[in-house]
Amino acid sequence: MKRLLVIGIGAGDPDHLTLQAVKAIAATDVFFIVDKGEVKHELVQLRLDLIAEHGRGPYRIAEARDPDRDRDTPAYTAAVDDWRSRRSLACETLIRDELGADETGAFLVWGDPGVYDSTLAIVEEILQRGEVSFEHEVIPGISSVAALTARHRVGLTQVGQPVHLTTGRRLAAWGATADDVVVMLDAHCSFDGLDDFHIYWGAYLGTPDEILVSGPVAEVAGRIRSLRAEARARKGWIMDTYLLRRMR
Amino acid sequence: MKRLLVIGIGAGDPDHLTLQAVKAIAATDVFFIVDKGEVKHELVQLRLDLIAEHGRGPYRIAEARDPDRDRDTPAYTAAVDDWRSRRSLACETLIRDELGADETGAFLVWGDPGVYDSTLAIVEEILQRGEVSFEHEVIPGISSVAALTARHRVGLTQVGQPVHLTTGRRLAAWGATADDVVVMLDAHCSFDGLDDFHIYWGAYLGTPDEILVSGPVAEVAGRIRSLRAEARARKGWIMDTYLLRRMR
Ligand SMILES: C[S@@+](CC[C@H](N)C(=O)[O-])C[C@H]1O[C@@H](n2cnc3c(N)ncnc32)[C@H](O)[C@@H]1O
Ligand SMILES: C[S@@+](CC[C@H](N)C(=O)[O-])C[C@H]1O[C@@H](n2cnc3c(N)ncnc32)[C@H](O)[C@@H]1O
Repeated sequence: MKRLLVIGIGAGDPDHLTLQAVKAIAATDVFFIVDKGEVKHELVQLRLDLIAEHGRGPYRIAEARDPDRDRDTPAYTAAVDDWRSRRSLACETLIRDELGADETGAFLVWGDPGVYDSTLAIVEEILQRGEVSFEHEVIPGISSVAALTARHRVGLTQVGQPVHLTTGRRLAAWGATADDVVVMLDAHCSFDGLDDFHIYWGAYLGTPDEILVSGPVAEVAGRIRSLRAEARARKGWIMDTYLLRRMR
Repeated sequence: MKRLLVIGIGAGDPDHLTLQAVKAIAATDVFFIVDKGEVKHELVQLRLDLIAEHGRGPYRIAEARDPDRDRDTPAYTAAVDDWRSRRSLACETLIRDELGADETGAFLVWGDPGVYDSTLAIVEEILQRGEVSFEHEVIPGISSVAALTARHRVGLTQVGQPVHLTTGRRLAAWGATADDVVVMLDAHCSFDGLDDFHIYWGAYLGTPDEILVSGPVAEVAGRIRSLRAEARARKGWIMDTYLLRRMR
């Protein structure tokens, strides 16, 4: 039986890797890399570095090109679904053609595979089509949420209180509907104007480019906005996450 | 300057430890253990095992007894605040008396230190009292949430959708106010009756006692309830977490 590992690699620091992930990488025969093309090359490079460091025995790397996604449509979910189906076909081809009968293949997933990542849904889609069969296992990773709160040395949750994890798109549409909100996938500084909140913001967490800012939104929003724009222009891409905590 | 590390150790599997945590444990001179007394001894034992495995050089272990908490009061937050203050005094004493001037001390925190854990608030309280001074650093860990979704091979989040992280107490009081809800600290199977939801439930995740159940709440609630009661009676304690996902 073919075996597939979905391995969380943490959010940027190579030392976010768990011992379980280290062992999983060592047990892998074929690493599948789906390349996003021109930008974010560093994110692929981190994966290659981890493989070079922790891969054992003769292993292979099989690459596919990530299908393009329509980023300008307002139909966000439909666009993601469409892109995901095409991506799942690309992954299915890799698993079918590049993974031998009793071999172990692996996807190295940024952060934690459960947090705003499509790999698990893609694997389900492949299994449901039923063209290839394999067993699979998921290895949890340090998410950017865990990295963010650790670097700010602040709790994600307050005693007995809930926390909301959402996207920039939803924050922009609905506002902060809870006292504690973590926002990911925000391309537009959607925290702007939420002056009842303290913000703990982090970009490129765990990497040498890491930037941390915290303070009342009213005081630090401008600084975050300009740091963000400047870093994004310099590197060509940015990943940032933040926790909003209502001030009392 | 004294240095304090707050190290996330993952949610039960010793291999949840990150390389960063392994290095932090190796760099520690004094491990602080706050013992909860009779039950949950296994949770202390896992910490001692990790120290024995990853501690380096001459290190010491300093123990304190956890102050008792009033678990029967309806004033949950006040009871936790009171308990936390007494616990912070116990920890302050440890840091003052057991940690040398240029030494590194560490608390090994279950799961991720940001998720429903009091250690970071206790450290803030100690720093604010100003009786001892030290620098401190937080090392993220695999939370029981990441462990839960990985074992069920399911995403925590759906495309573009938010997820709510809350407590059993709040779920019982407010119901499931979102389509995706993770519940922790639930002593009472508060999912009962939420028949619009699929549940992914896990107890003792990452340990040899791990139990996983998933399915529509209406179908599996009874089984979870009896498995839970039986396991709790056998071991004397239980830790369980679940993800509720509204069915479509
Ligand atoms: C497609 S999601 C993947 C999340 C990932 N699975 C995780 O567990 O963090 C990408 C989003 O994660 C966040 N993110 C990931 N890595 C980050 C990092 N190193 N620093 C800041 N934010 C990060 C950003 O909000 C980014 O828009
Ligand atoms: C005081 S909180 C600590 C949470 C921890 N910091 C974390 O990141 O998971 C304790 C709660 O965490 C959850 N939990 C912790 N470890 C668990 C495990 N191994 N299996 C299932 N639930 C767990 C349970 O909901 C439990 O009531």
